Amino acid sequence: MAKTDIARRVYNHTWKLDPIVRSLLDTDFYKLLMLQMIWGMYPKVDATFSLINRAKSVRLADEIDEQELRDQLDHARTLRFSKKEMIWLGGNTFYGRKQIFESEFLAWLEDFQLPEYELGKRNGQYELSFHGPWMYTTMWEIPALAIINELRSRAAMRSFGPFGLDVLYARAKAKMWAKTERLRALPGITISDFGTRRRHSFLWQRWCVEALKEGIGEAFTGTSNVLLAMDTDLEALGTNAHELPMVLAALADSKKELRAAPYKVLQDWQRYYGGNLLIVLPDAFGTAAFLRDAPDWVAGWTGFRPDSAPPIEGGEKILSWWREKGVDPRQKLLIFSDGLDVDTIIETYRHFRGKVRMSFGWGTNLTNDFEDCAPEEVTGLNAISLVCKVTEANGRPAVKLSDNPAKATGDPQEIERYLRVFGAQDRVEQLVRV
Amino acid sequence: MAKTDIARRVYNHTWKLDPIVRSLLDTDFYKLLMLQMIWGMYPKVDATFSLINRAKSVRLADEIDEQELRDQLDHARTLRFSKKEMIWLGGNTFYGRKQIFESEFLAWLEDFQLPEYELGKRNGQYELSFHGPWMYTTMWEIPALAIINELRSRAAMRSFGPFGLDVLYARAKAKMWAKTERLRALPGITISDFGTRRRHSFLWQRWCVEALKEGIGEAFTGTSNVLLAMDTDLEALGTNAHELPMVLAALADSKKELRAAPYKVLQDWQRYYGGNLLIVLPDAFGTAAFLRDAPDWVAGWTGFRPDSAPPIEGGEKILSWWREKGVDPRQKLLIFSDGLDVDTIIETYRHFRGKVRMSFGWGTNLTNDFEDCAPEEVTGLNAISLVCKVTEANGRPAVKLSDNPAKATGDPQEIERYLRVFGAQDRVEQLVRV
Repeated sequence: MAKTDIARRVYNHTWKLDPIVRSLLDTDFYKLLMLQMIWGMYPKVDATFSLINRAKSVRLADEIDEQELRDQLDHARTLRFSKKEMIWLGGNTFYGRKQIFESEFLAWLEDFQLPEYELGKRNGQYELSFHGPWMYTTMWEIPALAIINELRSRAAMRSFGPFGLDVLYARAKAKMWAKTERLRALPGITISDFGTRRRHSFLWQRWCVEALKEGIGEAFTGTSNVLLAMDTDLEALGTNAHELPMVLAALADSKKELRAAPYKVLQDWQRYYGGNLLIVLPDAFGTAAFLRDAPDWVAGWTGFRPDSAPPIEGGEKILSWWREKGVDPRQKLLIFSDGLDVDTIIETYRHFRGKVRMSFGWGTNLTNDFEDCAPEEVTGLNAISLVCKVTEANGRPAVKLSDNPAKATGDPQEIERYLRVFGAQDRVEQLVRV
Repeated sequence: MAKTDIARRVYNHTWKLDPIVRSLLDTDFYKLLMLQMIWGMYPKVDATFSLINRAKSVRLADEIDEQELRDQLDHARTLRFSKKEMIWLGGNTFYGRKQIFESEFLAWLEDFQLPEYELGKRNGQYELSFHGPWMYTTMWEIPALAIINELRSRAAMRSFGPFGLDVLYARAKAKMWAKTERLRALPGITISDFGTRRRHSFLWQRWCVEALKEGIGEAFTGTSNVLLAMDTDLEALGTNAHELPMVLAALADSKKELRAAPYKVLQDWQRYYGGNLLIVLPDAFGTAAFLRDAPDWVAGWTGFRPDSAPPIEGGEKILSWWREKGVDPRQKLLIFSDGLDVDTIIETYRHFRGKVRMSFGWGTNLTNDFEDCAPEEVTGLNAISLVCKVTEANGRPAVKLSDNPAKATGDPQEIERYLRVFGAQDRVEQLVRV
């Protein structure tokens, strides 16, 4: 008769909480880079982050149990950076640079704790928000999204038996491996994992990262997930996000200051970071406006991360702008990261090959692609466009225009005001899948 | 990095119900023997079985969640005898006899389902009862007890971490193995497992049965658990229980019939079974009264199972009675089964060795002895004296007197009436631990 490890089995079947986020390093690297700058330059600024579910038809509050959500959020609040994690942050080389984090910042980080949250329900959706100093609330974005997305996966899989689950993951693994085989065929391509926030689950993200490591080898340049970077000896990747221009724009006291905000962000950034970390995120208030008003020194930065325009069209506009500024794009870097999957990656790679250096930050479709994998029809395994955005700074509304109006966030009147300042050039509505 | 089987882990941690009873064969063998007789001779008799917790200080309704209990009972009601189980029941040899179960009975058994239950709470205790035809309600006794006892263990272990559980079972295994070492030293001893109803858990009972098989070898004669007997190729053991005389006594229409009931049971039994199955259970209404009024032919039966008097004292009285009837006890069998543990087994074995054949039906202290095993103090792992007794037959109250007044069950006025009929000779109150 088969031997059963009774202790392990009892443990597995009297499970109380299976924590989704088990380390404060289980977040995107750019949050830590931004955090150091916020801590250094804007420690008094308050910022509110709010959950926004763009997939309105998915009633998250019906799919996910509120108590489970609270238990997970509460558990994340118990986390502190561990000694090993602090040593690694202080001793590791990031983007080729040692001691990227100041010792004073690390000393402060040692006591870091995620701040309180506010959770309610309305019309089948959760209203989840984080109020308080920016240097605390900013750290909720990734764990909050990872928790909700994984709770949603768990709820969707609750009806599956052991064979159903076995088949689900077998198919997902086969599908993922087929993607690596297609990518492996592209010489010189570089791909990284940007899939933390939208992942199916932590363990699945880890599997995907390890599959890429084995499957595409050198072409896999690293992961945005700091914990996985540490645990698998990969590069931790990422630079900055829309929250920086959004907060600085919200704090602007005049139209002039508002127009200057996207460039002030870059100047702030440059006080802290250099080299490959000098990546411009141009689309917070529209890429066309950004390029039109950009000072010449912006062309000296390492590269751009177009994040909402169609990749070829958006990338070409940046290449044109570089050429206008007398810069050879082949020395420059484009990082694509908006809703990529293998087809768009390959198409974009082929288009830009030889014209510009490029890299692909592969997110949702890397770590949460279970389409056609489930042995029974469930919608809860389809990834959704869920974000956690800054919505207020020091009590003023924060706005993102984006190149894609479907990705804009903020109060409609404020969006109108921003459009009057920045214009609406090249803004084209596209379906946001993930 | 350690590989995790994601599918298995998701399955383990999204567990809905871990069924305690997974087969209708997961019951005591004597229930099936009695069932065939009840089905054949008393198909129209109604019998109510009720849960009785003799350990009043243990508030079961506080320890065990009502919904979990209902889920387990409901699950047990979904069970049917499987094809493999039916073939085994029909084809196996029991007590050296082929086809112990009639084919008509087996045909009826194929559709057997546990009947409905009634569950309520009062003063921190569950009121659980089963009403209806005896040939259905009788089958609830063992699964109902096994379910409640295992739910209680699970609740007690809920606070344990993986190491706590590992240590708990490690200690319990070491303790159990030390018992087999002591028993192995006794030449000619025969021991069987009677621990289904009070077991800590099914998996733990299975471990104990396998440990005995390996630990004492030939001295281990089998198990009362039919499923384990089938799965481990052991003998299925057991004969009859108090419910037979209790129901027949309740149905008696006169004092004379009442006094004759314990012997009528034996006559009924003999119509169905012979040989080693002719075991007298003498203590339902007091062993002294039973022996005093017993017809001579009772001395021709294979043996007795004294179940409530102290084993040496009670056994000696039966030996004297055999001698009075001109029977050599060395040809006879005593089966001890009341609250045994290694010390009482050894003491009894030494006392009767050479005087009578004997066998030990080891129950609660075999399958539910976790004393001093838990890494933290919990009372919920101490076995309790929980029984499920017949309380009514055709609407009349059923009574057990026992040799130990602490084990008596039934309405106090009825107990008085029975005592007037049978007398109270040799009834001595003893502490009932399990």
